[in-house]
Amino acid sequence: MRFLSYTHHGATKHGVLRPDGDIDELGDGDLLALIERGGLNDPPAPRGRIAVEEIEIVAPLRRPPKLLAVAANYASHVLASGGTPLDPRAATPRLFLKPSSAVAGPQDVLTPPSIASNVDWEVELAVVIGTRVKDISPEDAMSAVAGYMTANDISTRAFDFGFARDEHSVAPFFDWLAGKWSDGYAPFGPYLVSADEVPDPGNLELHLEVNGEVRQSGSTSELLFGIPELISFASTLMTLEPGDVIETGTTAGAGIETGLQLADGDVMVARVGDLGEIRTAVRIPAAR
Amino acid sequence: MRFLSYTHHGATKHGVLRPDGDIDELGDGDLLALIERGGLNDPPAPRGRIAVEEIEIVAPLRRPPKLLAVAANYASHVLASGGTPLDPRAATPRLFLKPSSAVAGPQDVLTPPSIASNVDWEVELAVVIGTRVKDISPEDAMSAVAGYMTANDISTRAFDFGFARDEHSVAPFFDWLAGKWSDGYAPFGPYLVSADEVPDPGNLELHLEVNGEVRQSGSTSELLFGIPELISFASTLMTLEPGDVIETGTTAGAGIETGLQLADGDVMVARVGDLGEIRTAVRIPAAR
Repeated sequence: MRFLSYTHHGATKHGVLRPDGDIDELGDGDLLALIERGGLNDPPAPRGRIAVEEIEIVAPLRRPPKLLAVAANYASHVLASGGTPLDPRAATPRLFLKPSSAVAGPQDVLTPPSIASNVDWEVELAVVIGTRVKDISPEDAMSAVAGYMTANDISTRAFDFGFARDEHSVAPFFDWLAGKWSDGYAPFGPYLVSADEVPDPGNLELHLEVNGEVRQSGSTSELLFGIPELISFASTLMTLEPGDVIETGTTAGAGIETGLQLADGDVMVARVGDLGEIRTAVRIPAAR
Repeated sequence: MRFLSYTHHGATKHGVLRPDGDIDELGDGDLLALIERGGLNDPPAPRGRIAVEEIEIVAPLRRPPKLLAVAANYASHVLASGGTPLDPRAATPRLFLKPSSAVAGPQDVLTPPSIASNVDWEVELAVVIGTRVKDISPEDAMSAVAGYMTANDISTRAFDFGFARDEHSVAPFFDWLAGKWSDGYAPFGPYLVSADEVPDPGNLELHLEVNGEVRQSGSTSELLFGIPELISFASTLMTLEPGDVIETGTTAGAGIETGLQLADGDVMVARVGDLGEIRTAVRIPAAR
């Protein structure tokens, strides 16, 4: 099923997309409460029905307990960035966190912060955790998955803080990390597609275009650390909770590889398999 | 006032510590809802009174929207770790995120994950945000503060993943970062002391002892980036939300400087000024 969160007359609700394109309304608030109750496997009876034109789709989860992401998880992206791909049998995944204030819906406009002087895209498959797990093996890890979403992991690649920093004081990693956090830098959705509808999440097409020009085209079959390995590894570090999101990394074609960057008026479209499309218009105020 | 969250007969509630040591009960759930309503400045009338012996104090905020922390923000800690302190006039703070699953209460037992082979302490002043702010200046930043807490930023300093990683594949920063995330690695409390009771948060004593031996002894007067500068900088990156927590960094005496580390049966006591004490017993199962 395709679960989604939406607003209607100012109230946030969640529901299921019907085959006819309407929405069966399931309850108040976004999908987190339903996931925490384990409700994706056994959703409540619809309490109403509404046309998609009457609502605004928002991010399936507006405040996931954790929003994890993975760096350097596609060989093509690592090679094009000038790096050496990891051998997943002799390495550990490179995880980082994004804050829930970065979450955006599938139609939200992106306004980077004024200190961002180079902003970049990364289409990614996002995994939503459905079950509280700790120290789960790769063999068992898929049982913890509630479903999947299309995601775009936005990054500030260069900052202008308005003053010159001492060269020796600049820690590139902390800049890279903070570059992942700004408001709107984690658009995902439009749906949370339940795991039963995605028989092979390791074989989904990744697609990102900017103003209609294809920038990224790949497949989750390229993942260095697969979904089971990512979940298992993260769960050795900490408990994964229902509603946690793991963005699994990006394929070749990010701006950091080519020197391209986002500009005012650009429109990104990101898509993973048939999980649905995220359309993100970029707004950079001219006054800067 | 000293706000706190607690459990009573299995239910989580929040209240205020009374001068006589009892608690005025204010409402259900932890303090997040009260902070989101701006209620620390104008708390509701107590709905009951309970003796502290009847309840268990838990973390003031069990799921802060964001839990930010700062690396290298005390010259003494940086020097003792072999580094060069930043000049805050020519640098930017080194922020990182911890997940809310790491949050622990002021009496919780710490059980590091089995992959942690060296675990360390860091007593820190934690700032709780009360107001939604973006791009706030250092001059105005203190208006966003709801209050303060004692915190202990626990870290895994070395991992044993059970297999040998390729040396070139190990990214020390990603290990350092993931070392901050495990369950129980963010004890704070016991109180959220409202800002009006802390006239000079830049002059609070920091104290941490292990088994009664003093390990850290310093003052927030040593902060390289002060509280206004940290809030202002973070708010240029992203919106700070009510209930966000910023742990402001640690002074000299962490185990990473001296080679000391936590062992099974150790008891840490952390204290900042008179904000209250966190007592964390360490449990490392012998079976490992």
